Amino acid sequence: MTVVLDHPSSASDAEIARLDLPKPYLLFLGDAADTTFLKTGRGLRDWAPDLCVAEHKCPGAAATLDLPAMTPREAYAAGARALVLSAASIGGAIRESWIPDLLDALEAGLDIISGAHDRLGDIVPLRQAAQAHGRRLIDVRTPPPGLPIASGRRRSGRRLLTVGTDCALGKKYTALALAEAFRARGLAADFRATGQTGIMIAGRGIPIDAVVSDFVAGAAEMLSPDADPAHWDVIEGQGSLFHPSYAGVSLGLLHGSQPDVLVLCHAHGRDRIVGLPEFALPSIGRAIEVTVQQAQLTSPGVRCAGVSLNTAGLSDEDAERAIAALTIEWGIPVADPMRRGPAFDRLVEACLA
Amino acid sequence: MTVVLDHPSSASDAEIARLDLPKPYLLFLGDAADTTFLKTGRGLRDWAPDLCVAEHKCPGAAATLDLPAMTPREAYAAGARALVLSAASIGGAIRESWIPDLLDALEAGLDIISGAHDRLGDIVPLRQAAQAHGRRLIDVRTPPPGLPIASGRRRSGRRLLTVGTDCALGKKYTALALAEAFRARGLAADFRATGQTGIMIAGRGIPIDAVVSDFVAGAAEMLSPDADPAHWDVIEGQGSLFHPSYAGVSLGLLHGSQPDVLVLCHAHGRDRIVGLPEFALPSIGRAIEVTVQQAQLTSPGVRCAGVSLNTAGLSDEDAERAIAALTIEWGIPVADPMRRGPAFDRLVEACLA
Repeated sequence: MTVVLDHPSSASDAEIARLDLPKPYLLFLGDAADTTFLKTGRGLRDWAPDLCVAEHKCPGAAATLDLPAMTPREAYAAGARALVLSAASIGGAIRESWIPDLLDALEAGLDIISGAHDRLGDIVPLRQAAQAHGRRLIDVRTPPPGLPIASGRRRSGRRLLTVGTDCALGKKYTALALAEAFRARGLAADFRATGQTGIMIAGRGIPIDAVVSDFVAGAAEMLSPDADPAHWDVIEGQGSLFHPSYAGVSLGLLHGSQPDVLVLCHAHGRDRIVGLPEFALPSIGRAIEVTVQQAQLTSPGVRCAGVSLNTAGLSDEDAERAIAALTIEWGIPVADPMRRGPAFDRLVEACLA
Repeated sequence: MTVVLDHPSSASDAEIARLDLPKPYLLFLGDAADTTFLKTGRGLRDWAPDLCVAEHKCPGAAATLDLPAMTPREAYAAGARALVLSAASIGGAIRESWIPDLLDALEAGLDIISGAHDRLGDIVPLRQAAQAHGRRLIDVRTPPPGLPIASGRRRSGRRLLTVGTDCALGKKYTALALAEAFRARGLAADFRATGQTGIMIAGRGIPIDAVVSDFVAGAAEMLSPDADPAHWDVIEGQGSLFHPSYAGVSLGLLHGSQPDVLVLCHAHGRDRIVGLPEFALPSIGRAIEVTVQQAQLTSPGVRCAGVSLNTAGLSDEDAERAIAALTIEWGIPVADPMRRGPAFDRLVEACLA
């Protein structure tokens, strides 16, 4: 651990070190049998429709995102500048059967964007074709170079970070929904992506969990640089301070983000860390107390505005009942961003209060 | 952040993924003018004398570690198997003027070990000579491959982790001194290195701050695998939970280490983070409270045994007086491991209690 002197992040640094993706996209669905295998594609269609020009898939593939079907050449003519691997969830493999379509895309003038575990550049025919056609192969799980050590310097502008009692319960969707709601109220707000799907949706970002640990807080500083005092950066959280595998990632992101406001994300009924049942989740009160305490190191005035409750699987009626009951039990605004309405409006107002 | 199911670390994994260095060493002092430029070399001489066969330097260089002077060929004949770049502190550059000596070492049959920022393999003549002679170029700041995601699974054996109120105040030396004291009491104890100098001293380890953030806790689990119930792993801490740049690294190391015992390291009179004067250090009581609270996630029975106080710069008399006063003020054993005596013995006993 080397002690490094003040190295402020700035908008210009950010332009350098943030992944900035070619846009708009042709979504490649591969040979997915149904949309459950299209997590990335559904996220893009739902949250970045204006980035999604068309879809393309292997012959005979059944799944569709109900976007116009175009070949890479047609999509390029329609303005697309990148093909996005949209089949399977982030971290999956690149299938042999997709290569011909990917080669077509490079030849048609499209770059290729992937969140898969396999690196595009490690696939020889793709690397050769990209070189031959002057195209980029972009692995969004690879962090950009030039990330700084965090300085802890206070930055201008306002920041909100979504945090969680566990992984995989809606931190990305909550941040997207809040940024959208802020903009709907006429405020300047940017969603700041820290994971692969989020980066594709935002068209830029930094994959925090792939950053070398010494630079995590610095990457978070760079991701939300100095901004207009009224501007909101709504930052996608990662992991959980209560997860034995990932808490360090979450803490570095928390410190570098310097949030003015936290929104705690929780999944209704979940009481154990997913995959690690011997680890119980903290109570909501405890989770807020510990997270705020940790956040105060770099953001002394930080507060938690409310709880984003993932009620997937509950009927609208049961969800509404649960949200009403927990709002009283926890004494703080509670809403499911996937179910817009008065509760969500109250959560948004609490963030902006 | 992907949710990963239980992936226990084990001794066999550890053998695979831990850096294991060729030993013993020829210490290369380069062209250092005096020993203040030999931080790495002094650490090796002081803490791993049996690994230090000899020293070698550029013609006319003034500094010495008072080891026998040998050429690479002589050192190889005397049993040395690696030349260690011992000039300048970790993170420095590799000087042009050193290359001829490094080429001699490779030709003499020695591998080269470096903690410098420059990668040995990026220096073309070194890479070519290493290939030609079948030698290894080992950058100890490069983590080994195959690190797992942390599982949080409780491991057998006993563990002590040194933590700090800041960086650069003695976490490595404290861990080395405690491991030595444990062994002097007839206990089985290993120093577990997490930084470059520590790795050279131990001959193995993992450079935690260079590990991708998702794998930091997993690396810490791998570094101190299941062991005999009476065996102590004394783990070198990194950073500080109170440092705005590095707290995430420290938390991942804390969670993966599953310490039974913590020793808090502090520098006498320091009240601000080095290099970031706007950040005040916590009180000792607060530092212990927060660190123990965080450690309980993976080690519910964890306790802080005492404070390792760096009194460098104080006279023996002033140091003794300060240690006596702070032992009363803080209500916990306090000692400077660099000043052996009754206070240090009490700290050791408190660790073993």
